Amino acid sequence: MSVNTVRFAVGVLGVFGWSLTISSATQVGLSDKVLVFPYETDFSFVAMIPQKEMGLRAFTLCMRVATELPEERQIILFAYRTADYDELNVWREQDGRISFYMSGDGTFFHLPPLTTFRTSLCLTWESRTGLTAFWVEGKRSTYQVYKPGHSIRPKGTVLLGQDPDKHLGGLEAVQSFVGEITDLNMWDFVLSRSMIQAWHYGHKVPKGNIFDWGNMEYELNGNVMVVDDD
Amino acid sequence: MSVNTVRFAVGVLGVFGWSLTISSATQVGLSDKVLVFPYETDFSFVAMIPQKEMGLRAFTLCMRVATELPEERQIILFAYRTADYDELNVWREQDGRISFYMSGDGTFFHLPPLTTFRTSLCLTWESRTGLTAFWVEGKRSTYQVYKPGHSIRPKGTVLLGQDPDKHLGGLEAVQSFVGEITDLNMWDFVLSRSMIQAWHYGHKVPKGNIFDWGNMEYELNGNVMVVDDD
Amino acid sequence: MSVNTVRFAVGVLGVFGWSLTISSATQVGLSDKVLVFPYETDFSFVAMIPQKEMGLRAFTLCMRVATELPEERQIILFAYRTADYDELNVWREQDGRISFYMSGDGTFFHLPPLTTFRTSLCLTWESRTGLTAFWVEGKRSTYQVYKPGHSIRPKGTVLLGQDPDKHLGGLEAVQSFVGEITDLNMWDFVLSRSMIQAWHYGHKVPKGNIFDWGNMEYELNGNVMVVDDD
Repeated sequence: MSVNTVRFAVGVLGVFGWSLTISSATQVGLSDKVLVFPYETDFSFVAMIPQKEMGLRAFTLCMRVATELPEERQIILFAYRTADYDELNVWREQDGRISFYMSGDGTFFHLPPLTTFRTSLCLTWESRTGLTAFWVEGKRSTYQVYKPGHSIRPKGTVLLGQDPDKHLGGLEAVQSFVGEITDLNMWDFVLSRSMIQAWHYGHKVPKGNIFDWGNMEYELNGNVMVVDDD
Repeated sequence: MSVNTVRFAVGVLGVFGWSLTISSATQVGLSDKVLVFPYETDFSFVAMIPQKEMGLRAFTLCMRVATELPEERQIILFAYRTADYDELNVWREQDGRISFYMSGDGTFFHLPPLTTFRTSLCLTWESRTGLTAFWVEGKRSTYQVYKPGHSIRPKGTVLLGQDPDKHLGGLEAVQSFVGEITDLNMWDFVLSRSMIQAWHYGHKVPKGNIFDWGNMEYELNGNVMVVDDD
Repeated sequence: MSVNTVRFAVGVLGVFGWSLTISSATQVGLSDKVLVFPYETDFSFVAMIPQKEMGLRAFTLCMRVATELPEERQIILFAYRTADYDELNVWREQDGRISFYMSGDGTFFHLPPLTTFRTSLCLTWESRTGLTAFWVEGKRSTYQVYKPGHSIRPKGTVLLGQDPDKHLGGLEAVQSFVGEITDLNMWDFVLSRSMIQAWHYGHKVPKGNIFDWGNMEYELNGNVMVVDDD
């Protein structure tokens, strides 16, 4: 069951100056819960506090996501930003492709469209080779080579629902996420095919050491609902 | 097996003034039966008499539906109307979306298209949160928040096959249903995911306390056929 | 496990005069490996050395292939060329069809599109009848009759990744392969349906007597990566 520890979060998200430090409180644990972003806004988001610093040379990011947004609408799916850089962004682009950006130009994948039903989506990247791929319902996309040698910087902020364009905000409704996200997990290494498939089918896998949905520390802002997963 | 009690229905459907009070007779029970609406008409429909009044603050509506109608054709799938309001309407819109209306503006979902094969379709709504979703073949769509706090009014009439636009009729052929409907059930609460999936797979679930296909009281009007489900 | 025998290949590929004789070294064995062609180039390819001469009056060619390339982009999937002829080419055409050419005009098939996920693709042809078909995920396309009585000439060169338009090169980036190829096998006879399906599902089948992925002799040129299949 989810633990509903609530404590004040003043100053926790130093990257953003505005409402976060005023209105939000940290909660813990999202087991069997879904985040519902019901409307298009420029103020609804969930800040997620990682269990360890996100200076990364490899990662696996997984989530289950559903949206009703029309196909030609840009959608932010995951945003990790430090003061000066978009460190790790995942988007659905206007042309329907899913993209992955680290500090500059991104890389683009043709995947089955996101729909009103949940898609299980993982992303893996490893700095040594630059090999990166998305995994949809446990099936790997074609590998692409993206920024070999790069490192993701630590001490930033992870948001779901909005893309912060700059240090002190810059949220845009037309990029916001509308729909549902659940079961987000992140590891600081590349999971094997069998592990990703196990995660997809809801079997037991090693808990995310950066984000673990069941023990997630998070802060709700604006109109985001935490709903039983049913 | 279905019970074929027939009794006269004069005056039962007080909302409509016209042919209902003259031609139809109430029948009971549709176990293993399918309603076939073979042609486009402005006079064929089935009135369904609920087991309890439909003053509702939550519901689950399920049915199996198949149609050959072209994609750009508007189709009424379920209509519950009181004297002044469309209390609960389900449509397939001209743009292919499935919509749900209560007393005014509706909410729209992108679902897989209805086809010549049967689609199992459920709709859940709960007033407290406004959370609503369609369930297709047991899979839930993205939640939408629709009219939290609203109540559906009692003492109206439920029709399949036509949309009554006003108190005394106003049926339109171009909105009529053509195809098959079976296994319609309705509950005055939100069924759990596992119950909806059980219903989808034809397993045993609690009988609908508003509508129970096996014990349905209904009145056929115009060209509607009751056919063995084979 | 793959055997990584490396020996010099000077002069092995006599058909082409250019960099092959200078830069490449033959390697052996690709068990559990994938060839990743990460970028569009006019210089990245893999030359594959057959286990026996390719004077053929029948064959089965199988591979698993994934690509992110847009649908309207021509793609070379397999090229076997002798000095004067394209002996056996497989393409995805600009109109999305998959084609098969031997020494002149080709034959064209409407198959499911190649995607970012792996497609298992086989091609069978037999000179006596001319019957040819593609097999996608173990399912056979409609037969076509193509060049009955024809023979494929020996002593050519097989390339993956590029189409050599003439004796001394003529590679074009806009025809190059970008994506992944794995598990390529070729036999000098037509495999039965059950054998092709067994191959599709990864079951044991007779090893390819022309190409056997696990014992493949190959030479990497340009930017081609050999990656663990995970």
